[in-house]
Amino acid sequence: MPQAPQAALPPEVPHVVIVGGGFAGLWAARGLAHAPVRITLVDRGNHHLFQPLLYQVATAGLSAPDIAAPLRHILRRQRNVEVRMATVAAIDPAAKRVRLAGGDALGFDYLLLATGATHAYFGNDAWAAHAPGLKTLDDALALRRRLLTAFERAEAEPDPTQRAAWLDFAIVGGGPTGVELAGTLAEIARHTLRDEFRRIEPATARVRLIEAGPRVLPSFPERLSERARRQLERLGVEVLTDAPVTGIDADGCHLGERLVPARTVVWAAGVAASPLARTLGVPLDRAGRVPVRPDLSIGAHPDIFVAGDLATVQQGGRPVPGVAPAAKQMGRHVARTIRARLGGGTGTPFRYRDFGNLATIGRQAAVVDLGRLKFSGTLAWWFWLVAHVFFLIGFRNRLTVMLDWTWAYWTWQRAARIILGTGDDTPAGPPGPS
Amino acid sequence: MPQAPQAALPPEVPHVVIVGGGFAGLWAARGLAHAPVRITLVDRGNHHLFQPLLYQVATAGLSAPDIAAPLRHILRRQRNVEVRMATVAAIDPAAKRVRLAGGDALGFDYLLLATGATHAYFGNDAWAAHAPGLKTLDDALALRRRLLTAFERAEAEPDPTQRAAWLDFAIVGGGPTGVELAGTLAEIARHTLRDEFRRIEPATARVRLIEAGPRVLPSFPERLSERARRQLERLGVEVLTDAPVTGIDADGCHLGERLVPARTVVWAAGVAASPLARTLGVPLDRAGRVPVRPDLSIGAHPDIFVAGDLATVQQGGRPVPGVAPAAKQMGRHVARTIRARLGGGTGTPFRYRDFGNLATIGRQAAVVDLGRLKFSGTLAWWFWLVAHVFFLIGFRNRLTVMLDWTWAYWTWQRAARIILGTGDDTPAGPPGPS
Repeated sequence: MPQAPQAALPPEVPHVVIVGGGFAGLWAARGLAHAPVRITLVDRGNHHLFQPLLYQVATAGLSAPDIAAPLRHILRRQRNVEVRMATVAAIDPAAKRVRLAGGDALGFDYLLLATGATHAYFGNDAWAAHAPGLKTLDDALALRRRLLTAFERAEAEPDPTQRAAWLDFAIVGGGPTGVELAGTLAEIARHTLRDEFRRIEPATARVRLIEAGPRVLPSFPERLSERARRQLERLGVEVLTDAPVTGIDADGCHLGERLVPARTVVWAAGVAASPLARTLGVPLDRAGRVPVRPDLSIGAHPDIFVAGDLATVQQGGRPVPGVAPAAKQMGRHVARTIRARLGGGTGTPFRYRDFGNLATIGRQAAVVDLGRLKFSGTLAWWFWLVAHVFFLIGFRNRLTVMLDWTWAYWTWQRAARIILGTGDDTPAGPPGPS
Repeated sequence: MPQAPQAALPPEVPHVVIVGGGFAGLWAARGLAHAPVRITLVDRGNHHLFQPLLYQVATAGLSAPDIAAPLRHILRRQRNVEVRMATVAAIDPAAKRVRLAGGDALGFDYLLLATGATHAYFGNDAWAAHAPGLKTLDDALALRRRLLTAFERAEAEPDPTQRAAWLDFAIVGGGPTGVELAGTLAEIARHTLRDEFRRIEPATARVRLIEAGPRVLPSFPERLSERARRQLERLGVEVLTDAPVTGIDADGCHLGERLVPARTVVWAAGVAASPLARTLGVPLDRAGRVPVRPDLSIGAHPDIFVAGDLATVQQGGRPVPGVAPAAKQMGRHVARTIRARLGGGTGTPFRYRDFGNLATIGRQAAVVDLGRLKFSGTLAWWFWLVAHVFFLIGFRNRLTVMLDWTWAYWTWQRAARIILGTGDDTPAGPPGPS
């Protein structure tokens, strides 16, 4: 029978279970590298995902492996970590156990719950079928299929009205993801697909960005929101603000009486915390997130921590934003707290250090808010690009992403314009590829 | 309404319909670039696939876009081609029409049917669930998920017998694909996954290659088959020859009385022609391929041609092999014949030029048969590598593939070890990631 390469971790040291291999979970595991603990990192997937570039996979700029790396590989040299690919069914705080789908259970001395958020339709789950969201690599590949297939359907469609409908795109939600998707999609229609079709002119595609609030990128200063809007419009995106969506169906997005026609709709509007939080038996906020104490533990159970998008932390009267740097900082802080507790001390309160806020819009278009320093346009775009390549996990990924981007920059081409899967999830219309 | 960038192709010139964007179809389209015809290339996918490297996607060495390029993009400058992404339901030779799924139809003056082959279970379709095959990018991603998930299941499995079962792999079929898969899988188990697991030793995985005939790589000279076998065994593959599989189920492969245990089985044994051939109404051979006349047209309908794996052509008493170079040559020949007919002439008989036969086995292991010149081992491997990179479609793909391979060579790592999809198709066992 197979034998482990070395004795399993000594059972007598405290057991730390980390659920979720995102930024919070991974940085917490790393923060405990030299602590006298054994760690089990549980994730339902086998990889850490560099979420900030997920929209690039959806828009065929990068391939899935460019922005993901196997958790086992990242942590292979950290001998006190076991990576377990499994789905967590529930947490039992009283018994200090994590129940896995399939019946297994893991006892823990310390638990970090960092399963993040998923997209939410605010109780309108019927919209999901018409307006898929973007949270996982599988979401991204499904979205890529939808976006690219829409142009194929338009090309094949004899009826002009139907054809035009296939070229109507709407993105719901004017946050960073919505802005990135809208800008990139407009670029694909105007440049990437040029000369490739014979019956349609892809550049006539209409890309609409629909935001319920008064401005796009609400987390940025108003001036940058205004700049972002202008840059989007320059790329050919129609920006609709103060436009709360009241319905989404096969015809498009309904704004009260008004219909914004769109055969292809993408949901970038809302997120809700992972449902696992409910099994903690503590009160949650409206978005289902877990209000945590200053040291990121939960009131009732000081040995259970919550970090990343699943946690809601107030700081200076404002919630800490659900961004990668915040998740990394929380993960590191939880590791620090556990180390302190093991040493007989107590943790310090978590303090979020805001290093700035970036959003990209499209080629040579981005906005950067570094507090005192705010800028947009080409410089901001280069700043965004360098920062994101720098933070990518793994040297190889940096290399391939830079290669893909350099290629895309000079050729206007996109590396990953491959339609995968059966296309069963593409909207109604002539039967697709099989 | 959207207008085509230029007038649609003049309807008065002869219409050539090509079904299938593989090597035969794509090379035929290119061969007609300057002919006075309008061409419609129909494929159910949006991309041309470099099939010879498909096993690398299945074994996580390359990502899907590395070996595929959108047909529209490849042909964007050839103005007499329209690419249509659609599934062909049937051919009506008498009416000279191609019926598409969804009701549309395309009339043709000349037709090239080049839809290739799919994997076949010789009437044992129940085996498909236990032993998936490898023909499309989706097959490759599903197979990647199965192979990588098996190690994850083994790591999570407390029962030693069950754990060992998850580390039993069998590949059925000793042709080039089976040999490539077996060799690469052994390499992954012994090198790529080293140090990444805590409870299992991936190197203890057993990889068995099961071939019904007396030797692997039957299309090669016996001496090279023998070398291939030795190289496989050096990589840690158990090679079983004269071992016809009589059954495949959840326990493994049955060879008559004997059971070769395997929780993960891959089918690389048999291919059958695409079922579309049946709608031609002409006699087919046992594998469902279309026997063609010397000019690759079919007897009853001289304006209908069949090329690539779908056609069976005898030459010097031996069938022309189902390999990429043969498909390209057939495609070019069909183009030549159509050009000759348009000029009032007649076609010449097709002659297959065999430039040699390559098969890779694993790191520094391959066999090359150039007729007079036969060699194996490191030199053969480098020869195979250069040849395949050279023939890859698109400069960018060459670049990224070379990068991925260089990386893999020095680090033993594999770029694309990302498990995508729900894993619904993984074999029975503890519930997987969702």
